[in-house]
Amino acid sequence: MEAVVGRLFVPVEGSGRHVHLTREQVLALFGHELTAKRPLSQPGQFLAGERVTLVGPKGELSNVAVLGPVRKEAQVEISLTDGKLLGIMPPVRLSGQVEGTPGVTLRGPVGELELKQGVMAARRHIHLHPEQARHFGVRDKQVVRLQTLTDRPVIFEDVVVRVSPEYEAAAHLDYDEANACGLGQGGLGRILP
Amino acid sequence: MEAVVGRLFVPVEGSGRHVHLTREQVLALFGHELTAKRPLSQPGQFLAGERVTLVGPKGELSNVAVLGPVRKEAQVEISLTDGKLLGIMPPVRLSGQVEGTPGVTLRGPVGELELKQGVMAARRHIHLHPEQARHFGVRDKQVVRLQTLTDRPVIFEDVVVRVSPEYEAAAHLDYDEANACGLGQGGLGRILP
Repeated sequence: MEAVVGRLFVPVEGSGRHVHLTREQVLALFGHELTAKRPLSQPGQFLAGERVTLVGPKGELSNVAVLGPVRKEAQVEISLTDGKLLGIMPPVRLSGQVEGTPGVTLRGPVGELELKQGVMAARRHIHLHPEQARHFGVRDKQVVRLQTLTDRPVIFEDVVVRVSPEYEAAAHLDYDEANACGLGQGGLGRILP
Repeated sequence: MEAVVGRLFVPVEGSGRHVHLTREQVLALFGHELTAKRPLSQPGQFLAGERVTLVGPKGELSNVAVLGPVRKEAQVEISLTDGKLLGIMPPVRLSGQVEGTPGVTLRGPVGELELKQGVMAARRHIHLHPEQARHFGVRDKQVVRLQTLTDRPVIFEDVVVRVSPEYEAAAHLDYDEANACGLGQGGLGRILP
């Protein structure tokens, strides 16, 4: 049963607001390395036990998730709803495309630091292992549509496929998108050409 | 130009959280009748100068819009994002279908009252005048798809058409949906069968 579902559909996950940090930033904010609290769907990625507060010109968001492992560059992924609250409008970008994005202040238990850039709304995307990409007939960087089998069904256009041997099949939406389609636990989507 | 656009597309509007109240509730909350601050896209409907606070078990939302004119029954339209903050999960309903929906406490400048029911996430819908419905080839209560011509293009499925001589063409999304499609000023949508 699960095998059949996996041949037809991809799991759809809502990504809450979160930050990626460099090792130096982790030490400055928490005074120690990240602790892994829970593994994520992408192999090797984890939710850290540490949390930060985002401070913008119009408001703050506390208890924001930190994902590990550490990266070479910081990235803060928020929804447009979050952006309104903070007073920082995030451009919609693919992960890693931080050039020219706005900054934000991060506050941790032992320190505060100002990011010059890195705030974005993650562009919706689908992670696939090369074998899964072959199966679905799509390639890395291809733009597809994703039809959700959810309470409020939606066909998301302009969804980027990302293929890597390090990936496992999962479509990633932000919380605005997840709420717009009524995504619950175990949500599934269909890749449309 | 505008006429051509109107023949092909419908304006898409994001509806922020808002409440509809009975005359008795207006008097209990504000001590006077509603004052009209700004007309809305639907003829006769207006944004009132008065604002209320929604009080739920987990949080509050202040400065919430009140729409006029008064109705026979109260209705509180919020997004799923708002619902998480308040601790009240709104079912997705068409306007007027308040039976069995959760309640909420409303706080105004001169009084507070508890609604037994009326909290919902508005089911996305398209208002059309009968002539516009004829033009687009759709009828009242028909379920269609709405393709947005926006920054983050989306095809919303399960969109209900509502036809009345009192309506003017407008697709209504909540803010989760508006953010999910990157809706800005002057957003347009195309009705798909």
